Amino acid sequence: MATGTLGGRMRISDLARISGVPLPTIKFYIRERLLPPGRPTARNQAEYGEEHLARLQLIRVLAGIGRLSLSSVRRVLAALDDKGLSLGAQCRATIWALFPDQPEEDAPDVGPARVQVDDFIDRLGWAVDAASPGRDTLAHVLTALQRLDADCDIDVFSEHAESAARIVTHEFRHESAHSATAMAVWNVLSEVAFEAMRRMAQESHLAGCCAASAERPAGA
Amino acid sequence: MATGTLGGRMRISDLARISGVPLPTIKFYIRERLLPPGRPTARNQAEYGEEHLARLQLIRVLAGIGRLSLSSVRRVLAALDDKGLSLGAQCRATIWALFPDQPEEDAPDVGPARVQVDDFIDRLGWAVDAASPGRDTLAHVLTALQRLDADCDIDVFSEHAESAARIVTHEFRHESAHSATAMAVWNVLSEVAFEAMRRMAQESHLAGCCAASAERPAGA
Repeated sequence: MATGTLGGRMRISDLARISGVPLPTIKFYIRERLLPPGRPTARNQAEYGEEHLARLQLIRVLAGIGRLSLSSVRRVLAALDDKGLSLGAQCRATIWALFPDQPEEDAPDVGPARVQVDDFIDRLGWAVDAASPGRDTLAHVLTALQRLDADCDIDVFSEHAESAARIVTHEFRHESAHSATAMAVWNVLSEVAFEAMRRMAQESHLAGCCAASAERPAGA
Repeated sequence: MATGTLGGRMRISDLARISGVPLPTIKFYIRERLLPPGRPTARNQAEYGEEHLARLQLIRVLAGIGRLSLSSVRRVLAALDDKGLSLGAQCRATIWALFPDQPEEDAPDVGPARVQVDDFIDRLGWAVDAASPGRDTLAHVLTALQRLDADCDIDVFSEHAESAARIVTHEFRHESAHSATAMAVWNVLSEVAFEAMRRMAQESHLAGCCAASAERPAGA
């Protein structure tokens, strides 16, 4: 394998060099129990294997470009490590793990919005668990919007829900996720990608509006 | 106005009580220059007005349910405070402000992916600035996906791009954003809402798959 490994076994310094992750960061991940400790060797050292390298790369992609908090990463990893779950249950657990623990510091009363959200999901015909954190998140967003505009109701998100369903159907048809890990990585990365594309679509729309009215973009 | 205000002027303790934001948090926001300091009064105190209350509520929604980092909040507020910008330029600046400063700690070479992203945006016909942080974010995501699967190319996101454009067109048609502030709040909240809906659509899809194969969800 890579230089410095002994039949795939490495010292922690090799793990740092090969993964490109700084040594203090690796030690931090071990202390935080995101990365399992190495196998102790006779000389007061520990050796690491390919499984550590793979786990390290997974943490980096989730917490790096994937922008998950370390507590979300920990929950995703716990779901992936839970061998008692079926593949479907494991995938669902990793999806739930993406939601932050507490959606808001000062929790307002989201009861009325929650009723609207539950009705909305019923009308969409979606099979979503009553305890799914998505319901509460959507109720919190709706409550915040209703504080700004009392007339705002959940149907403001009808187009978003349809688009979300279309994307998911497309992904399940075309992406071959062979494992819960592959699906978790794809989910996290494609959320970041979608957000970037939506913001660029907005930028483009704004450029069109401005060009049509007073402002003329440079080079037009 | 509310009890404890003198013609709309308040002490900092009133601001805390009325807004529901704890006093130490308000002081933290002032120290961090997110909230402007109050107008000094004769008695070694400062008084606060409705503009402080509105700004405080804006910070809370962006950093709370909107889940922006404080550095993103600071950049959004700076864009909204820049009266030298046109409405279009202000909206674009707030969109750009949503992207984190550095998309990844260990920056890989995203050059080849960046070429694909630029070509993709050209083919979509989107008017996106060459310096838009969305291009780099998408290139980072694509690079991460290509590290896992060398065959992955940017067209994996065609359906996402179409959906993003459809949502944005719909929003500009139906949402009446009267100000850059209203647009920024809507953007941030609707991103959180979309993410929640997409995750619920996945959960629903998984439940359907499992029901159709071996597992039967409880109650079915």
